[in-house]
Amino acid sequence: MTREPDSHYSSGNEAVIGWDIGGANLKAVRLSREGLQVVQQPFAVWQRRDELAEALARIAAELGPAPCAAVTITAELSDAFRTKRDGITFILDALQSALPETELKIFGLDGKFHHPAKAYQQPMLVAAANWLATALLVARDLADCLLVDIGSTTTDITPIGGGKVLAEGRNDPERLVRGELLYTGASRTPICALVQRVPLWGGWCPVAAELFATTQDAHLLLGHLPAEQCASPSADGRPATPEYALERLARVVCADTELLSQAEVQAIAQYIANEQIHQIAGAMTQVLSRVKVVGPVAAVGAGAFLAEAAAARLGLDYLRPATLARGAASVAAPAVAVALLLNEEACV
Amino acid sequence: MTREPDSHYSSGNEAVIGWDIGGANLKAVRLSREGLQVVQQPFAVWQRRDELAEALARIAAELGPAPCAAVTITAELSDAFRTKRDGITFILDALQSALPETELKIFGLDGKFHHPAKAYQQPMLVAAANWLATALLVARDLADCLLVDIGSTTTDITPIGGGKVLAEGRNDPERLVRGELLYTGASRTPICALVQRVPLWGGWCPVAAELFATTQDAHLLLGHLPAEQCASPSADGRPATPEYALERLARVVCADTELLSQAEVQAIAQYIANEQIHQIAGAMTQVLSRVKVVGPVAAVGAGAFLAEAAAARLGLDYLRPATLARGAASVAAPAVAVALLLNEEACV
Repeated sequence: MTREPDSHYSSGNEAVIGWDIGGANLKAVRLSREGLQVVQQPFAVWQRRDELAEALARIAAELGPAPCAAVTITAELSDAFRTKRDGITFILDALQSALPETELKIFGLDGKFHHPAKAYQQPMLVAAANWLATALLVARDLADCLLVDIGSTTTDITPIGGGKVLAEGRNDPERLVRGELLYTGASRTPICALVQRVPLWGGWCPVAAELFATTQDAHLLLGHLPAEQCASPSADGRPATPEYALERLARVVCADTELLSQAEVQAIAQYIANEQIHQIAGAMTQVLSRVKVVGPVAAVGAGAFLAEAAAARLGLDYLRPATLARGAASVAAPAVAVALLLNEEACV
Repeated sequence: MTREPDSHYSSGNEAVIGWDIGGANLKAVRLSREGLQVVQQPFAVWQRRDELAEALARIAAELGPAPCAAVTITAELSDAFRTKRDGITFILDALQSALPETELKIFGLDGKFHHPAKAYQQPMLVAAANWLATALLVARDLADCLLVDIGSTTTDITPIGGGKVLAEGRNDPERLVRGELLYTGASRTPICALVQRVPLWGGWCPVAAELFATTQDAHLLLGHLPAEQCASPSADGRPATPEYALERLARVVCADTELLSQAEVQAIAQYIANEQIHQIAGAMTQVLSRVKVVGPVAAVGAGAFLAEAAAARLGLDYLRPATLARGAASVAAPAVAVALLLNEEACV
């Protein structure tokens, strides 16, 4: 999808593109004098890695020209690649082949942009730095807050104090251990990874260890996510509508819509959403057990509604940060962030 | 694979084929005067449903002719089908098209064989009855035991007393709620469905909610499953060898083999196996809290080693039942069971 330019955002000088190259979604924004344009596209790199360069080129053409592009990458974790090093190399190759005339600036875990040559040499410097870009941007407006960015797949929880990013972990496993990265999202999380059992017939039913349904189904059925915001592919490939979501959720307990009533499936969805909010609140508590944050929870991303629910449960104030509060910008926060950060630097 | 006829088994009269049509594996055995032949083939019905009839015909040709075939079906749960009714109908159609000259006898949850016409009419009578076939067979030799059949994907726990099958649940969700069906298996279970965290660096690391690795990787790395017995497709499509299993398991904590040492991944595998045995022992305890079983645990299936480990943990005696103890027969227990059960009935 492309959204109309949002004139709330504009570049002071030349246009700049921001890329967020994830394993399940490609996101790109173009920041220009006219405002901000956003493109988001599901792209399963583990199924289609050889089409990546082509997909990038198509999105770039849709957005229009810019001399400079800021890039953040998380797709290197995909099992399309044997190691993160292999993944970063492959993605950099695809970017250079798709955008031969664009100067690429790769965002790193040191908070700086790097030439592709350096990224090839030090892949771990640029792997999964997207959360830091968002945090640096938010820290300017909200010097004290707990940034909670919930996307389709993952949740980033970043403490910010005195205008500084106070995260402790750098790479993915370090961040997981510290509660700063939680592998849960608003749409792609398999139900069997989120809960081991759900309520059924007054008892507890263990769930099937299969990709039968995802969080998108639960939030769709509960009205948390409107159908038009359900961009992630469904588990069975059928449409993201309440009717099909019901079928997928029934299958989680090895049942179907002949065996279970709508109310029985609805109760399962309610439990799933409740558990997900509980887990997010738990990770927030873990982070807050290390760093005292004096400000509110800053909720960002397609799953901002989950961050707000978790904050409410913990009795914390929350808001949507102004820089990233607007619809399209919120769901593509890291792409917006790298574009805005690079916009302030001299491009060449 | 086809195994050489095992003359331990033989039919008294004409040859009979036993089919176990699962969602991830097709298994078939031919019982004849020469003994027992077994074919097992991974077949992902959710990806390739339109090739099912062809796959069935190929396996039938490999096994050779028989006037009669006994059939048990579990593939109706696959999300290739919107309901179990749809699934049973589709699979019966495929069977009739693949085996036009064979008399089909569909095994039901009443312990009897049925004409396909009845199965079309009453799909829930024949859906997921495989566990009952195995239990009826085992109950003849072991009048008192706790039958634990662990396959690639699921575990069936069936109490047997006084030669009778004492299971309480009939359909899948009823059996899940009662601990008689546990959705965990020796090879296909996604790690993210089995555990929510693993030990790392002296702490706990939550796992990625992605299909990055399966139980096959853990049991392969630990030497519980020899590589030649790893028949299930791996999560990343790469070979089932310790080297690749290491890569897949490292990805479960969003890492790779550059970030983690072999010992660190080995510790993760150890924890995963330990948790799986713990869950199986837990479900066994649940079943035993309802039915007093005086005999030993009867361990069956490709994951019989897990059933034995769980029994040992509970201080219970265990054995491999003679009827199903032999290699090929053990991994295809329900197919062997329906063949042996039908063999005793008049075919026409």
